[in-house]
Amino acid sequence: MLTQAKKQRNWKPIIKAFEAVLSKNGVVQRREELITYECDGLTSYRQRPALVVLPRTTEQVAEMVKICNQYSVPFIARGSGTGLSGGALPSEDSVLIVTSLMRQILSVDLENQRIVVQPGVINSWVTQTVSGAGFYYAPDPSSQIICSVGGNVAENSGGVHCLKYGVTTNHVLGLRIVTPEGEIIDLGGQIPEMPGYDLTGIFVGSEGTLGIATEITLRILKSAESICVLLADFTSIEAAGATVSDIISAGIIPGGMEMMDNFSINAVEDVVATNCYPRDATAILIIEIDGLDVEVEGNKQRITEICKKNGARSVTSASDPETRLKLWKGRKAAFAAAGHLSPDYYVQDGVIPRTQLPYVLHEISKLSEQYGYRIANVFHAGDGNLHPLILYDNSVPGALEQVEEVGAQILKLCVKVGGSISGEHGIGADKKCYMPEMFSTADLETMQWVRQVFNPKGLANPEKIFPTPRTCGEAANAASAKQFEGVERF
Amino acid sequence: MLTQAKKQRNWKPIIKAFEAVLSKNGVVQRREELITYECDGLTSYRQRPALVVLPRTTEQVAEMVKICNQYSVPFIARGSGTGLSGGALPSEDSVLIVTSLMRQILSVDLENQRIVVQPGVINSWVTQTVSGAGFYYAPDPSSQIICSVGGNVAENSGGVHCLKYGVTTNHVLGLRIVTPEGEIIDLGGQIPEMPGYDLTGIFVGSEGTLGIATEITLRILKSAESICVLLADFTSIEAAGATVSDIISAGIIPGGMEMMDNFSINAVEDVVATNCYPRDATAILIIEIDGLDVEVEGNKQRITEICKKNGARSVTSASDPETRLKLWKGRKAAFAAAGHLSPDYYVQDGVIPRTQLPYVLHEISKLSEQYGYRIANVFHAGDGNLHPLILYDNSVPGALEQVEEVGAQILKLCVKVGGSISGEHGIGADKKCYMPEMFSTADLETMQWVRQVFNPKGLANPEKIFPTPRTCGEAANAASAKQFEGVERF
Repeated sequence: MLTQAKKQRNWKPIIKAFEAVLSKNGVVQRREELITYECDGLTSYRQRPALVVLPRTTEQVAEMVKICNQYSVPFIARGSGTGLSGGALPSEDSVLIVTSLMRQILSVDLENQRIVVQPGVINSWVTQTVSGAGFYYAPDPSSQIICSVGGNVAENSGGVHCLKYGVTTNHVLGLRIVTPEGEIIDLGGQIPEMPGYDLTGIFVGSEGTLGIATEITLRILKSAESICVLLADFTSIEAAGATVSDIISAGIIPGGMEMMDNFSINAVEDVVATNCYPRDATAILIIEIDGLDVEVEGNKQRITEICKKNGARSVTSASDPETRLKLWKGRKAAFAAAGHLSPDYYVQDGVIPRTQLPYVLHEISKLSEQYGYRIANVFHAGDGNLHPLILYDNSVPGALEQVEEVGAQILKLCVKVGGSISGEHGIGADKKCYMPEMFSTADLETMQWVRQVFNPKGLANPEKIFPTPRTCGEAANAASAKQFEGVERF
Repeated sequence: MLTQAKKQRNWKPIIKAFEAVLSKNGVVQRREELITYECDGLTSYRQRPALVVLPRTTEQVAEMVKICNQYSVPFIARGSGTGLSGGALPSEDSVLIVTSLMRQILSVDLENQRIVVQPGVINSWVTQTVSGAGFYYAPDPSSQIICSVGGNVAENSGGVHCLKYGVTTNHVLGLRIVTPEGEIIDLGGQIPEMPGYDLTGIFVGSEGTLGIATEITLRILKSAESICVLLADFTSIEAAGATVSDIISAGIIPGGMEMMDNFSINAVEDVVATNCYPRDATAILIIEIDGLDVEVEGNKQRITEICKKNGARSVTSASDPETRLKLWKGRKAAFAAAGHLSPDYYVQDGVIPRTQLPYVLHEISKLSEQYGYRIANVFHAGDGNLHPLILYDNSVPGALEQVEEVGAQILKLCVKVGGSISGEHGIGADKKCYMPEMFSTADLETMQWVRQVFNPKGLANPEKIFPTPRTCGEAANAASAKQFEGVERF
């Protein structure tokens, strides 16, 4: 249907309408310039959009969306394009609404710990804006120096420090959005708990299918008085997993608690040579604790005891910023290191209950042997959010398909033990076919009725999140997605 | 319309259908037994339901709802009936589905900090169930020894400790619900962040308009190692308000931070004689801090300094359970004390930004003088959640109407300074006409489209949350509520 429409579509009046609002500079239409936009961080899917538009204000976004509605053109919002699930992948014959010119900090209210930003503002700028006054913005995806707040809202992004402070949804108080029909509405507000339905909560993580956020009110937190990083070294995965459980069970919620396996440790030492990570460890834990001086000191002692009780060979700690950074360096370079070890790698994102860590890691190592691909495990252990890195060579015919199969097996394993097919990267184009593994037909139908309310013509980010017969076949039919295509609202 | 329907309705086959599922014991139909159910905690609205049914399982609830659909009978879910906004107020000609026989703890998973309960389980039972193992359930409405978890979910209830730990929505991981059409679906799950739309978040606080929760998965927390309660005594509201802001700005989030004004202090001392609260104080703050021993000790010193810097005449502290309870006693008895001082009282529930505390309390005292009603101020100061208690005598003709007018003025004041018309009691029947003060027509429309998805026939808790022309006149028309009445889904 869309392909057919593409051939017939006359873009001239549409381009003219866009240019009337944005001027010629705001509309990208040359093929060579459009290449940049044909994928996001998930580079294995590519599709060039027909056009890219670059609005600067809420009103301009609303105008763009209204023009798309007038001509029935699908549109996809895109921030910095760092997403890992293909949430900003263009559809054929679509317009990409890119927020990279919407980079204003609109207001800062330190007393009430609020900041209002445009969606193109880079995640790390939020903290930079308020750090002088002793505040920070908690969600910290590993791409934080480049990813946009709008993209974080769309994907409900997480990060190392989300164990203690929660993911993006816990930090968004209010949103001004442009609905898929071009209306401007406000969700939530300046205070955390608003009456009525929590539409802010439903919008965060909806991956652009319910509209485009154009003003985002974020909660900022007071910076901790003290921070300490611990590095604990284990000779078994079981011992490291038990340590994670014991720390949480003791009532301590570290700022972050990361695990790396032997393969990851050696990969980063080969590439960035931190000289901190013991190459013969089966697993290491990197644990950051923050709070008052006395609190950090107390927790440091208790965590060290728990590590030792579980057989840690050593526990090193660092309180000064420089040494802390050194202990984190390898973890932060893990993805880059994988890139050095192998021509290509595939990052998976799944969640399991913490107590299932040893079992799941054992099963992943069996998959690695069975399929013959090396898998590095680097992950947010505290919240059970796994990020297996599967190393492969895309120039080998069939390798990508096999690696995707391994990824699928890992996701099924996560669901089997009571976990989730996505922790913080979203569903996007990449994982929609797995949604029926996790949700019943009735559950998926309910979500799609809600989508239909906001997005009755289906123009906003089509073919994302929910399985469709065209791309997922049987799975989609089981989830009854078909009935929602082209259904009019009421 | 409903009145007309009532006269014509033949209840006999409906009762027969209910009894076939629940037996005769599960269906209440005698007038004298139905009186208990004619209001919830908001006693100024009363309406006897036609019938009460008492299911025990999810499947029975689904059967009840299906029968209601078959005969187009409106139904309202009710827990313990302690709600303060009339959320469980019956409609004319309706069936009340009461969850008081659904009181099973379905499973406890300490390792993953989860507990699954039926909706009739009393809030305080959750903590009782897990406290032996060192855990607790954080949301603690003042009615916690009688209110039900299902009611807490419906109203997104708060409590004294929600400053630090968040309201009910932050502690609900998953829900099994019966939709308004009788379908059983699962929202959320066992892990905090699920992919897809956050339907759990939208259900919590939807006041029974989107269905009935029948199995609720709650997050439980590890009990704090140490707790300390501070009582600080101020000679001005401004000084107490500045102290609240300064504590939060210092990066300390106390477990709870409550304020009482001079009138409340004297009311509770008259009635319960704690002998702890200085009768000549303009305001007192009761601040509870929890955490590790060292953390609590450190915060106690810092908070004491902040209180002193802001002119506190004295700061008392208590760490042993008995003395802590004594310091809390007056605060917990505040509503009861108001009941002793006056034949009737009206509790308002509004939210303001913390920084507006002195201004808003000053305006409330002006309203008190202007209308000639005494108003006691007792509230969750940390999160700006006001609970002014307006004392009056219902036997005086017109008094209730005047008091409601004062309440309305207070809510408008809250909205004016950037706050909310409800902090933790919900909208229910009581505040629906104020929704347009806070939300635009487009915002309310969006919520009602979502309601329509779940509740297309409008049978689940009709005439709640959203303004209707019959009860709110102009306000409802402005909010375009009318178009949603009787609209079919798709």
